[in-house]
Amino acid sequence: MTFANVGTLGTTPDKRDELVAALIQRNDLLKTAGCLAYEVGTNDEEPNTVYVLELWESAQAHQASLALPEVQAAIAAARPLLSGVFGGFRFDVIGSPLRD
Amino acid sequence: MTFANVGTLGTTPDKRDELVAALIQRNDLLKTAGCLAYEVGTNDEEPNTVYVLELWESAQAHQASLALPEVQAAIAAARPLLSGVFGGFRFDVIGSPLRD
Repeated sequence: MTFANVGTLGTTPDKRDELVAALIQRNDLLKTAGCLAYEVGTNDEEPNTVYVLELWESAQAHQASLALPEVQAAIAAARPLLSGVFGGFRFDVIGSPLRD
Repeated sequence: MTFANVGTLGTTPDKRDELVAALIQRNDLLKTAGCLAYEVGTNDEEPNTVYVLELWESAQAHQASLALPEVQAAIAAARPLLSGVFGGFRFDVIGSPLRD
Protein backbone atom coordinates (compact mmCIF):
# COMPACT_ATOMS: atom_id res chain seq x y z
CA MET A 1 0.00 0.00 0.00
CA THR A 2 1.39 3.35 -1.05
CA PHE A 3 2.51 5.41 1.93
CA ALA A 4 2.63 9.20 2.12
CA ASN A 5 4.86 11.22 4.40
CA VAL A 6 4.54 15.01 4.33
CA GLY A 7 6.37 17.28 6.65
CA THR A 8 7.72 20.64 7.57
CA LEU A 9 11.30 21.12 8.67
CA GLY A 10 12.06 24.28 10.59
CA THR A 11 15.49 25.72 9.83
CA THR A 12 17.82 27.99 11.70
CA PRO A 13 17.70 31.58 10.34
CA ASP A 14 18.73 31.95 6.70
CA LYS A 15 19.44 28.23 6.28
CA ARG A 16 16.29 27.38 4.36
CA ASP A 17 17.81 27.48 0.89
CA GLU A 18 20.86 25.51 2.02
CA LEU A 19 18.61 22.75 3.33
CA VAL A 20 16.56 22.74 0.13
CA ALA A 21 19.74 22.42 -1.93
CA ALA A 22 20.86 19.46 0.19
CA LEU A 23 17.50 17.72 -0.06
CA ILE A 24 17.15 18.02 -3.83
CA GLN A 25 20.59 16.70 -4.67
CA ARG A 26 20.05 13.92 -7.19
CA ASN A 27 19.84 10.61 -5.32
CA ASP A 28 18.96 7.53 -7.35
CA LEU A 29 19.25 5.38 -4.25
CA LEU A 30 15.86 6.64 -3.11
CA LYS A 31 14.11 5.20 -6.15
CA THR A 32 15.80 1.86 -5.58
CA ALA A 33 14.58 1.97 -1.98
CA GLY A 34 10.96 2.34 -3.10
CA CYS A 35 10.50 6.10 -3.21
CA LEU A 36 7.85 7.07 -5.78
CA ALA A 37 7.88 10.83 -5.29
CA TYR A 38 9.95 13.27 -3.22
CA GLU A 39 9.07 16.91 -3.68
CA VAL A 40 10.85 19.65 -1.76
CA GLY A 41 9.70 23.24 -1.55
CA THR A 42 9.18 26.50 0.25
CA ASN A 43 6.46 28.98 1.10
CA ASP A 44 7.47 32.62 1.26
CA GLU A 45 5.07 33.19 4.14
CA GLU A 46 7.21 30.83 6.28
CA PRO A 47 10.81 31.81 5.48
CA ASN A 48 12.43 29.40 7.94
CA THR A 49 10.58 26.28 6.87
CA VAL A 50 11.27 23.62 4.25
CA TYR A 51 8.41 21.42 3.03
CA VAL A 52 8.76 17.81 1.95
CA LEU A 53 6.18 15.55 0.33
CA GLU A 54 7.09 11.89 -0.12
CA LEU A 55 5.31 8.89 -1.61
CA TRP A 56 6.71 5.40 -1.00
CA GLU A 57 5.78 1.93 -2.19
CA SER A 58 4.99 1.04 1.42
CA ALA A 59 5.44 2.28 4.97
CA GLN A 60 8.05 -0.48 5.36
CA ALA A 61 10.07 0.85 2.42
CA HIS A 62 10.07 4.31 3.96
CA GLN A 63 11.07 2.99 7.35
CA ALA A 64 13.86 0.85 5.89
CA SER A 65 15.22 3.80 3.91
CA LEU A 66 15.92 5.67 7.13
CA ALA A 67 18.47 3.04 8.08
CA LEU A 68 20.47 3.29 4.85
CA PRO A 69 23.98 4.64 5.51
CA GLU A 70 23.58 7.26 2.79
CA VAL A 71 20.33 8.50 4.32
CA GLN A 72 21.82 8.50 7.81
CA ALA A 73 24.71 10.60 6.48
CA ALA A 74 22.31 13.04 4.81
CA ILE A 75 20.33 13.41 8.04
CA ALA A 76 23.53 14.07 9.99
CA ALA A 77 24.65 16.66 7.45
CA ALA A 78 21.28 18.44 7.62
CA ARG A 79 21.09 18.54 11.41
CA PRO A 80 23.02 21.84 11.90
CA LEU A 81 20.53 23.55 9.59
CA LEU A 82 17.46 22.46 11.57
CA SER A 83 15.75 24.45 14.32
CA GLY A 84 14.17 21.38 15.87
CA VAL A 85 10.64 22.38 14.88
CA PHE A 86 8.95 19.67 12.81
CA GLY A 87 5.42 19.15 11.58
CA GLY A 88 3.45 17.05 9.18
CA PHE A 89 1.59 13.77 8.94
CA ARG A 90 1.65 10.32 7.39
CA PHE A 91 -1.07 8.30 5.74
CA ASP A 92 -1.85 5.22 3.72
CA VAL A 93 -3.02 6.06 0.20
CA ILE A 94 -6.46 4.64 -0.60
CA GLY A 95 -6.81 6.02 -4.11
CA SER A 96 -6.84 8.97 -6.47
CA PRO A 97 -9.49 10.59 -8.66
CA LEU A 98 -6.88 10.69 -11.44
CA ARG A 99 -6.89 6.90 -11.94
CA ASP A 100 -9.20 3.91 -11.63
CA MET B 1 6.06 26.46 -10.74
CA THR B 2 4.59 23.24 -9.39
CA PHE B 3 2.39 23.86 -6.38
CA ALA B 4 1.71 21.43 -3.54
CA ASN B 5 -1.36 21.43 -1.32
CA VAL B 6 -1.52 18.86 1.46
CA GLY B 7 -4.25 18.76 4.01
CA THR B 8 -6.24 16.99 6.65
CA LEU B 9 -10.03 16.99 6.58
CA GLY B 10 -11.76 16.16 9.85
CA THR B 11 -14.95 14.17 9.38
CA THR B 12 -18.02 13.69 11.52
CA PRO B 13 -17.96 10.30 13.30
CA ASP B 14 -17.89 7.28 11.01
CA LYS B 15 -17.96 9.38 7.83
CA ARG B 16 -14.30 8.97 6.96
CA ASP B 17 -14.72 6.20 4.43
CA GLU B 18 -17.66 7.92 2.79
CA LEU B 19 -15.56 11.04 2.29
CA VAL B 20 -12.67 8.99 0.91
CA ALA B 21 -15.03 7.29 -1.56
CA ALA B 22 -16.32 10.68 -2.72
CA LEU B 23 -12.82 12.13 -3.14
CA ILE B 24 -11.40 9.24 -5.15
CA GLN B 25 -14.24 9.06 -7.66
CA ARG B 26 -12.62 9.19 -11.07
CA ASN B 27 -12.51 12.79 -12.26
CA ASP B 28 -10.66 13.52 -15.49
CA LEU B 29 -11.57 17.16 -15.21
CA LEU B 30 -8.86 17.60 -12.58
CA LYS B 31 -6.11 16.60 -14.98
CA THR B 32 -7.45 19.04 -17.58
CA ALA B 33 -7.38 21.74 -14.89
CA GLY B 34 -3.67 21.16 -14.24
CA CYS B 35 -3.72 18.60 -11.43
CA LEU B 36 -0.57 16.43 -11.53
CA ALA B 37 -1.27 14.23 -8.51
CA TYR B 38 -4.14 13.84 -6.07
CA GLU B 39 -3.66 11.14 -3.44
CA VAL B 40 -6.30 10.47 -0.80
CA GLY B 41 -5.76 8.34 2.27
CA THR B 42 -6.24 7.53 5.90
CA ASN B 43 -4.26 6.83 9.05
CA ASP B 44 -5.75 4.36 11.50
CA GLU B 45 -4.41 6.41 14.40
CA GLU B 46 -6.75 9.25 13.38
CA PRO B 47 -10.04 7.54 12.51
CA ASN B 48 -11.99 10.73 11.80
CA THR B 49 -9.49 12.29 9.42
CA VAL B 50 -9.01 12.10 5.67
CA TYR B 51 -5.66 13.07 4.17
CA VAL B 52 -5.18 14.69 0.78
CA LEU B 53 -1.96 15.38 -1.08
CA GLU B 54 -2.19 17.40 -4.30
CA LEU B 55 0.33 18.58 -6.88
CA TRP B 56 -0.71 21.18 -9.45
CA GLU B 57 0.98 22.77 -12.44
CA SER B 58 0.78 26.11 -10.61
CA ALA B 59 -0.86 27.79 -7.64
CA GLN B 60 -3.07 29.59 -10.16
CA ALA B 61 -4.29 26.29 -11.64
CA HIS B 62 -5.20 25.06 -8.16
CA GLN B 63 -7.00 28.30 -7.32
CA ALA B 64 -8.90 28.30 -10.62
CA SER B 65 -10.00 24.68 -10.11
CA LEU B 66 -11.87 25.69 -6.96
CA ALA B 67 -14.21 27.83 -9.05
CA LEU B 68 -15.17 25.04 -11.47
CA PRO B 69 -18.87 24.15 -11.14
CA GLU B 70 -18.03 20.45 -10.79
CA VAL B 71 -15.57 21.15 -7.97
CA GLN B 72 -18.03 23.48 -6.25
CA ALA B 73 -20.65 20.73 -6.41
CA ALA B 74 -18.22 18.18 -4.95
CA ILE B 75 -17.35 20.55 -2.09
CA ALA B 76 -21.04 21.09 -1.35
CA ALA B 77 -21.69 17.34 -1.38
CA ALA B 78 -18.81 16.71 1.02
CA ARG B 79 -19.78 19.42 3.49
CA PRO B 80 -22.18 17.29 5.62
CA LEU B 81 -19.34 14.79 6.16
CA LEU B 82 -16.91 17.38 7.52
CA SER B 83 -16.36 18.25 11.18
CA GLY B 84 -14.93 21.67 10.38
CA VAL B 85 -11.44 20.75 11.53
CA PHE B 86 -8.85 21.28 8.81
CA GLY B 87 -5.09 21.22 8.72
CA GLY B 88 -2.23 21.17 6.27
CA PHE B 89 0.03 23.44 4.30
CA ARG B 90 0.92 24.66 0.85
CA PHE B 91 4.23 25.18 -0.84
CA ASP B 92 5.99 25.88 -4.10
CA VAL B 93 8.03 22.92 -5.32
CA ILE B 94 11.71 23.75 -5.82
CA GLY B 95 12.92 20.31 -6.89
CA SER B 96 13.27 16.61 -6.18
CA PRO B 97 16.21 14.28 -5.58
CA LEU B 98 14.55 11.86 -8.02
CA ARG B 99 15.22 14.06 -11.08
CA ASP B 100 17.72 16.59 -12.34
